[in-house]
Amino acid sequence: MATSRWTGTEQAPPVPLRRRGPVLERAILDAALEQLSTVGWSGLTMEGVAAGAQTGKAAVYRRWPSKEDLVADALEAGLPTLDEAVDHGCVREDLFQLCRRVRDAMFSRSGVALRSVLYECDAATAERFHGVIVDRVVEPSTQLFREVVHRGVQRGDVRADAVCELVLDVVPGLLMYRSKVCGSEWPDKDIAEMIDRVMVPLLRPYGSRQAPGGP
Amino acid sequence: MATSRWTGTEQAPPVPLRRRGPVLERAILDAALEQLSTVGWSGLTMEGVAAGAQTGKAAVYRRWPSKEDLVADALEAGLPTLDEAVDHGCVREDLFQLCRRVRDAMFSRSGVALRSVLYECDAATAERFHGVIVDRVVEPSTQLFREVVHRGVQRGDVRADAVCELVLDVVPGLLMYRSKVCGSEWPDKDIAEMIDRVMVPLLRPYGSRQAPGGP
Repeated sequence: MATSRWTGTEQAPPVPLRRRGPVLERAILDAALEQLSTVGWSGLTMEGVAAGAQTGKAAVYRRWPSKEDLVADALEAGLPTLDEAVDHGCVREDLFQLCRRVRDAMFSRSGVALRSVLYECDAATAERFHGVIVDRVVEPSTQLFREVVHRGVQRGDVRADAVCELVLDVVPGLLMYRSKVCGSEWPDKDIAEMIDRVMVPLLRPYGSRQAPGGP
Repeated sequence: MATSRWTGTEQAPPVPLRRRGPVLERAILDAALEQLSTVGWSGLTMEGVAAGAQTGKAAVYRRWPSKEDLVADALEAGLPTLDEAVDHGCVREDLFQLCRRVRDAMFSRSGVALRSVLYECDAATAERFHGVIVDRVVEPSTQLFREVVHRGVQRGDVRADAVCELVLDVVPGLLMYRSKVCGSEWPDKDIAEMIDRVMVPLLRPYGSRQAPGGP
């Protein structure tokens, strides 16, 4: 655990640093993520977060009335943004780059914390954090997969009837399944293999002799 | 909760039923599954299971030295067996029937209990129950998917290079993902859609004009 400046031999209470607005908020959210990764959901307290951010408890409660609110914001703020799928000229490369970004979100500090919080908290709180995963990871990534597949249809390297919810769930399904069942962390070479062995054959136009991008 | 015969107005302690061997074991395992579905992992006690099975605590401890051992056996005994994939003459029907059986295992009383136990228990115990899922559901179902795909290659309705671990994980991945993320219970029509929209296009031979079994 990080030792903060004021926990040495001094007897005086901590002197809050003079920070305001977004800078202070960022420090509080960072401290909340840090607490989640060290003491978990059950161990996290508003006092502990305030101490970690070198501020007072009132500064935390003023912004976040409860631990749930604070943690939800901290997790959201720490997740990478999934807002655009760059066109690399072929569906194979588009999918590869997009999968890497989804993998990075899953294994970001926030992504890992989010999944461990889901295991620890009660059902009502889990519902809320499940919502964070859906809103910030599941829906934006599905939307980007949809764009990439649509673009492939227009470009001609994807069959026209491939755009459907089930096809768009294949990559997220494999990412989740292998991470849960065999503890995979999805290095780039495994992502490339998934694209080449599963997605490219699945999406190839009818009548094609070979998968696009294949040998 | 079920009211057993001896919990009426009588003051005498329960008189154990005279059963031995497999019959008594079956009653104890059933009572353990019943307890899991009513009071969960945390609430389950050896005493409660003995009472539910209308036997004495000693009869339970003689066979299972700990709650973990008893619950692991109860979960295993309650899971449907996945030991054969019947040949229906085409990969589409083979996959459909196999997926239904995997879905039935997932949503069996034991399958549901197994997943909820994983959420409740500590990490070391979770490891053991995770092992039950792998040994009794994941590995046998992957082996059957492998057989079905191999058979399709020999029959000619599956491309020769389709047999690989990633392709075999697509169905289990989708089953898990949609059940977790959108609470799907995978009715037959959704399974049929998954086969027709994902698996048949993924497995079709190169150069085929249409998906096998398609219109």
